[in-house]
Amino acid sequence: MNLSPLQKARYQYSPKLPGMLRNGIAEISVKEGSETQSVADQEKIKELFPNTYGKKEITFTKGANTSVAKKHVVGVILSGGQAPGGHNVVSGLYDAIKATNKENELIGFKGGPSGLLEDDYIVFTDEYINEYRNTGGFDIIGSGRTKLETEEQFAVAVETCKKHGITAIVIIGGDDSNTNAGVLAEYMAAHNTGVQVIGCPKTIDGDLKNEDIEISFGFDTATKTYSELIGNIERDCNSAKKYWHFIKVMGRSASHVALECALETQPNICLISEEVAAKKMSLSEIANYIADSVETRAAKGMTFGVCVIPEGVVEFVPEFGSLIAEINELLAGEKANAFNELPTWADKYAFIEKGLTKEAMEVFAILPQSIQQQLFLERDPHGNVQVSLIESEKLFSALVGDVLKARGYKGRYAALHHFFGYEGRCAFPSNFDADYCYSLGYNAFMLIQYGYNGYLSKVSNLAKPAEEWVAGGMPITKMMNIERRHGHDKPVIKKALVELEGKPFKYFEAHREQWAVETCYTFPGAIQYYGPSEVCDITTRTLALEKGE
Amino acid sequence: MNLSPLQKARYQYSPKLPGMLRNGIAEISVKEGSETQSVADQEKIKELFPNTYGKKEITFTKGANTSVAKKHVVGVILSGGQAPGGHNVVSGLYDAIKATNKENELIGFKGGPSGLLEDDYIVFTDEYINEYRNTGGFDIIGSGRTKLETEEQFAVAVETCKKHGITAIVIIGGDDSNTNAGVLAEYMAAHNTGVQVIGCPKTIDGDLKNEDIEISFGFDTATKTYSELIGNIERDCNSAKKYWHFIKVMGRSASHVALECALETQPNICLISEEVAAKKMSLSEIANYIADSVETRAAKGMTFGVCVIPEGVVEFVPEFGSLIAEINELLAGEKANAFNELPTWADKYAFIEKGLTKEAMEVFAILPQSIQQQLFLERDPHGNVQVSLIESEKLFSALVGDVLKARGYKGRYAALHHFFGYEGRCAFPSNFDADYCYSLGYNAFMLIQYGYNGYLSKVSNLAKPAEEWVAGGMPITKMMNIERRHGHDKPVIKKALVELEGKPFKYFEAHREQWAVETCYTFPGAIQYYGPSEVCDITTRTLALEKGE
Repeated sequence: MNLSPLQKARYQYSPKLPGMLRNGIAEISVKEGSETQSVADQEKIKELFPNTYGKKEITFTKGANTSVAKKHVVGVILSGGQAPGGHNVVSGLYDAIKATNKENELIGFKGGPSGLLEDDYIVFTDEYINEYRNTGGFDIIGSGRTKLETEEQFAVAVETCKKHGITAIVIIGGDDSNTNAGVLAEYMAAHNTGVQVIGCPKTIDGDLKNEDIEISFGFDTATKTYSELIGNIERDCNSAKKYWHFIKVMGRSASHVALECALETQPNICLISEEVAAKKMSLSEIANYIADSVETRAAKGMTFGVCVIPEGVVEFVPEFGSLIAEINELLAGEKANAFNELPTWADKYAFIEKGLTKEAMEVFAILPQSIQQQLFLERDPHGNVQVSLIESEKLFSALVGDVLKARGYKGRYAALHHFFGYEGRCAFPSNFDADYCYSLGYNAFMLIQYGYNGYLSKVSNLAKPAEEWVAGGMPITKMMNIERRHGHDKPVIKKALVELEGKPFKYFEAHREQWAVETCYTFPGAIQYYGPSEVCDITTRTLALEKGE
Repeated sequence: MNLSPLQKARYQYSPKLPGMLRNGIAEISVKEGSETQSVADQEKIKELFPNTYGKKEITFTKGANTSVAKKHVVGVILSGGQAPGGHNVVSGLYDAIKATNKENELIGFKGGPSGLLEDDYIVFTDEYINEYRNTGGFDIIGSGRTKLETEEQFAVAVETCKKHGITAIVIIGGDDSNTNAGVLAEYMAAHNTGVQVIGCPKTIDGDLKNEDIEISFGFDTATKTYSELIGNIERDCNSAKKYWHFIKVMGRSASHVALECALETQPNICLISEEVAAKKMSLSEIANYIADSVETRAAKGMTFGVCVIPEGVVEFVPEFGSLIAEINELLAGEKANAFNELPTWADKYAFIEKGLTKEAMEVFAILPQSIQQQLFLERDPHGNVQVSLIESEKLFSALVGDVLKARGYKGRYAALHHFFGYEGRCAFPSNFDADYCYSLGYNAFMLIQYGYNGYLSKVSNLAKPAEEWVAGGMPITKMMNIERRHGHDKPVIKKALVELEGKPFKYFEAHREQWAVETCYTFPGAIQYYGPSEVCDITTRTLALEKGE
């Protein structure tokens, strides 16, 4: 194995625990707070979670450990998309388990939740885990997108647990995975399996967040990686003065990533999907908004700029959503055959023109041909438009070009395009994420040791130095509400969107007009793991603003 | 102005000079070596450069400074594409100038060579330069692509120099810009202007390299930035096990960037344009080569991979080059009109089929339709195919898909695409580039002070710690040969391509078969400016291999 110098150096890093977890397992006592309620739909949630609803909030403090000594065998699962720090959750969990009792075991189920169902696992050892400390990726055991949600699956999971003598399962995942962790916890309690379930909040998207979960892990590192690149491109465009860069960043449901990157780099334009939806903005309005910046800047001699776009923005444009729905309807099932047999694009276009409503056709007509074709030619196995494949960065740059042409703009306007997503999901975790994740894992075992079930590992006060962080746990049901999913009412963790009244957006809103017409770029540079604390240890601007720092 | 924490911290960094330049200006003496010859075409080059040909190599050593004291006014120009470290060349130059005599001045011409012709300039001050120390970008004075090559331009340049009392011009640029610096130096000498010209070797492409210039500045930082991202993607794909990532990296004429990234990250596949050309590989051969890796890996359960592609590779595929030439001929001048009037792509395709030779049509026929259309629809103002716009990462992933289909491969093969270029050209310079560039600038003034003209600032022994670096100068004519450019014989600096017999390529060649079928990824992580020396201060694998380290 060929290790990079940084990887070798990062093996030596000792993640910082919250101050109150630093005195050894024997000195961690528990403090129960008040009973909790779900964020909404309390009656329904309570009915669905009779064994795990309404439990108390937990905080750990320095003091004599009063948990019941018993041997623990813990299973751990990585679920869903990669996020920097996953390996540290596992190593923190492992260290707490082994520090408590060398006979304890940690079992990793491979390839995500399916590993638990298929009993595909490894038993962690010091040697194995040491190769993954403070590194990025989920390759320690792999991840997967299988959803643990049916009773049949739960029954299989219980069998696997029995076979290994598992006393607890830690599920590291996003909102869906933690919802399922909550449901599994209820099942385990209802069936007296003696297996506890603990969740850990992961997602680079940042949309697993509420009054208890200040930040999901991975968001810090991923946004710092994207901000590094956006800053580099800003510096390039301010040096070359030739291009408008349209940069799409990951984040399909929420725009936290785009917003954080904007706060870090101060681009000329950043679209926020939640605002687009709230203001019911049309494609043309958005294009005009960007074109205003292009024109104003050009008039000052600045024929360059940077526009950040959240991955999912087109889905938030109401008229575009309607268009997609109509296209899906137009080509549903058999109807696609007639369309597919038309020989030329011109024939197909005529078919489309005939099939869409006037309103939808107006939207369709302004799209660049490449996007038009993408909508009709690249459909998923069910015949639906694949919205995630739409190159919205190219869509908006083309629309802006059209607007400028229509306005009679004669200046330079040349666009380049980027998409940043996979570049940041497996970066070496920042010191913040390395510390936070290690603490989440360590803390997860404290919840297990004290017998809690259906809790999320919670570490808070994160805008402060790690010494002041607060470790504890929160009942998963507290974050739940009822939402309509696939035609059924389901208890789910409420996804956190960007709040237009929240401080991060308000800060952005107060500055963006200046950023649009001046050049206020900030260059964060690469994530630093060593060096001055103000360079290495600070987490996101979003959290700082939320905490009023 | 909003500065990032890293930018503030980098202001405090003191770049390391070569040991022999560390004792102050008064303690730098000069040692002349033997007279030089151009690398080829000696008689012709000598004839073209009667005043600057055959000069001696220069090395500086510790000792009494014997230069003639006089006031210097130096002009500096950034030429061509951005490369990390340009600001440090300027600040090193500035510091040497001011350390010698506070009355000395450094004038920066804005927007590249055109600034000298248009007398668009600033006079550097401490306050101004301090805002740019150890930062990326060329925004300190901007850059441009105007070529300084005609006698008329030179005459204008002399006027500008006279106006400011300029005694020397430092041109920071790539092979073309340094060629022009050599020609300008000869002009200055021939016309007794008293203006010296010194070049500094810049380019992220790494193709300005020879026995004297070990590395061009910016190559280290840019390749480290791309390698960070490639490593992150490798870790992601080894975690998710779902995708083949096709990653294009900058480097149109030479594949040094791709090769260095491959040495840093050990991807499954890396194409090297020089090898493609030498082996006269066809598109189909390349696609089959990649498909072999896809199939072998899939058979072992690894339905993922990373393939690195140098930006210019398609231009090195002989049959593709012939196709482009035929297309340019087919649509030259008036002939494009008939083509443009054809209503549908099917009509156009028939036109193409009729117009191309059988050989060219065979190549054209295997291209994905999007690339076919790109070749015919997006042409430059002269009607030529815009090779630089060809999305070769998508071309190869599609061709590989076709090959797999033809072979009856039934496994998973899903591709994602990336292009890394602008992300790395303006990164904060690595410690290596910060030190190297500062030394190049500082050293450039030593050459000026000692009266040299037509020299390149040369700092060598770069695989060793800065203390052991050797500072000196080399006559630009030494790097020149005669090449055919636009129908004329011209004296130019020979571009350095990847040598297939060189140690970096040999190392790659010896390992790539293993990398293709196993998973040997290395994760370099983000550039570190602080921390352990082995993490922060080491330059490229290419240089280490070339120097046998």
